[in-house]
Amino acid sequence: MQTEIDKLAPGGGSLMIAWQLKGKRALLVGGGEVGASRIGHLLGADAHITLLCPEKGLHPTTKDYIAKYPNRIAYYDRRFTGPAELHKMDIVLTAIDSPATSREIVDLCRQAKIPVNAADIPELCDFYFGAHIRDGPLQIMISSNGNGPRISALMKEKVQASLEGYEGLALSKIGQLRAELKERVPEIGGPLGRKRMKWMSKICNEWPLIDFTLLDSAMIQKLLDEGWEKDRVPTFTEVCSKPRPLGVEDSSKGHRFGSNLLIPIAHFVAGAALMAAVILARRR
Amino acid sequence: MQTEIDKLAPGGGSLMIAWQLKGKRALLVGGGEVGASRIGHLLGADAHITLLCPEKGLHPTTKDYIAKYPNRIAYYDRRFTGPAELHKMDIVLTAIDSPATSREIVDLCRQAKIPVNAADIPELCDFYFGAHIRDGPLQIMISSNGNGPRISALMKEKVQASLEGYEGLALSKIGQLRAELKERVPEIGGPLGRKRMKWMSKICNEWPLIDFTLLDSAMIQKLLDEGWEKDRVPTFTEVCSKPRPLGVEDSSKGHRFGSNLLIPIAHFVAGAALMAAVILARRR
Repeated sequence: MQTEIDKLAPGGGSLMIAWQLKGKRALLVGGGEVGASRIGHLLGADAHITLLCPEKGLHPTTKDYIAKYPNRIAYYDRRFTGPAELHKMDIVLTAIDSPATSREIVDLCRQAKIPVNAADIPELCDFYFGAHIRDGPLQIMISSNGNGPRISALMKEKVQASLEGYEGLALSKIGQLRAELKERVPEIGGPLGRKRMKWMSKICNEWPLIDFTLLDSAMIQKLLDEGWEKDRVPTFTEVCSKPRPLGVEDSSKGHRFGSNLLIPIAHFVAGAALMAAVILARRR
Repeated sequence: MQTEIDKLAPGGGSLMIAWQLKGKRALLVGGGEVGASRIGHLLGADAHITLLCPEKGLHPTTKDYIAKYPNRIAYYDRRFTGPAELHKMDIVLTAIDSPATSREIVDLCRQAKIPVNAADIPELCDFYFGAHIRDGPLQIMISSNGNGPRISALMKEKVQASLEGYEGLALSKIGQLRAELKERVPEIGGPLGRKRMKWMSKICNEWPLIDFTLLDSAMIQKLLDEGWEKDRVPTFTEVCSKPRPLGVEDSSKGHRFGSNLLIPIAHFVAGAALMAAVILARRR
């Protein structure tokens, strides 16, 4: 029988993580099509980028990036020259056509204990990339663990279609609420830290996600005064006088309802309407 | 105007990556509830785990893991004692109640250039965890970048509901196909490597995902003989005599159709049937 533990630990996978690169240095060797996509990922994570690539190898998107972010990308019109290039680097990515050069760079990174990814050569990589969805503070990554990158890309479209479009905005408002609460209660861990975490979790469970999109500074203060300070979760209408967004009637209904419910209802109604039209037409 | 580049590089995010831990050593300090969840992640990525935790602090799930995986988890009934614990470690995770001890461990890891995560103290982390979905070789991670972990967990349910349930199996079959093709054409990069990648991508675009679940060794060979060798993508019926799974009629329809289409049809039909019943009942 498969136990809970078996389901959790099937092996053969990766450790899925969100790597922090704010203020860190990234070396990117190669600025072609794959290199351009790597720049997007690195800029999205606020890295300082050093790019090595002969000018003739630059993809148009890479050129756009270099032109648009001169303070974020230090571009050198040449190939990788040797170990000195790795000085003070926090992460290294190769996106070049030569597996031999990639292997050389990877070996140097291993010696220097710098995490490294070599595009298209999984056996050389400390980490893989995957298909990636970004909406503000929300990031979703889909990995096939090298089995089918094209399928990851197709699944990305599917996952994207399952999102409502306001998740990123709602999350950033929840982040503001959390930050304000942390200013009132700065304790790390301990009973108060746990109480803070529990209260945040409770409001996230009880309020429909879309309601958070309407939060502003005044409402956040009211929510903390009437909610956190009194150890309860106020309703949306208690803290907001604005009308609630369409598709959500009652915050007590929680997350699982929302505009997604309208789609099956629409299909049901369309079916009913068509059948009524058919039968009524036949009666005449 | 927001350009394609702005959309790609909004900043403020993380580098979402699939870290490789097969045969690597992980130190986990703390075996409580969070520690137990970390063990699941580490085992899923085939790491060798060293766990430090006084026995009275062990979560029941942690105890189950220790009992079930004695060759994968070296458990020591004590606290972290100092820098020697980090010897030969490839990654370090703390999941303890003491921020001071976490900070001490993180400082030691920084000196030794070992990636480290300290649970609940984001400012000390080289990387964050997120909500995680696993189905065979498929892994999906959802990160709120610390804004709302509870929302990530709720979104995980939503993303999971958007999956059909056979994606992991299909991906592992695609992985087998890819591996067989790589045995025929082992070249890394270059024109042949690119041709291989393009052919794999083409069949992934043209076949509905569910069809891959039926692939067996004989079909894979036929697919390569009739497909790869002749530079074309055979249809499912060309390589398989088995009946196609329910909900998929024609592989030329591609991915976007499948059992998902049946749900709105069912709602439509239910609406039509109800309306017919109502009108016909009234006629009597």
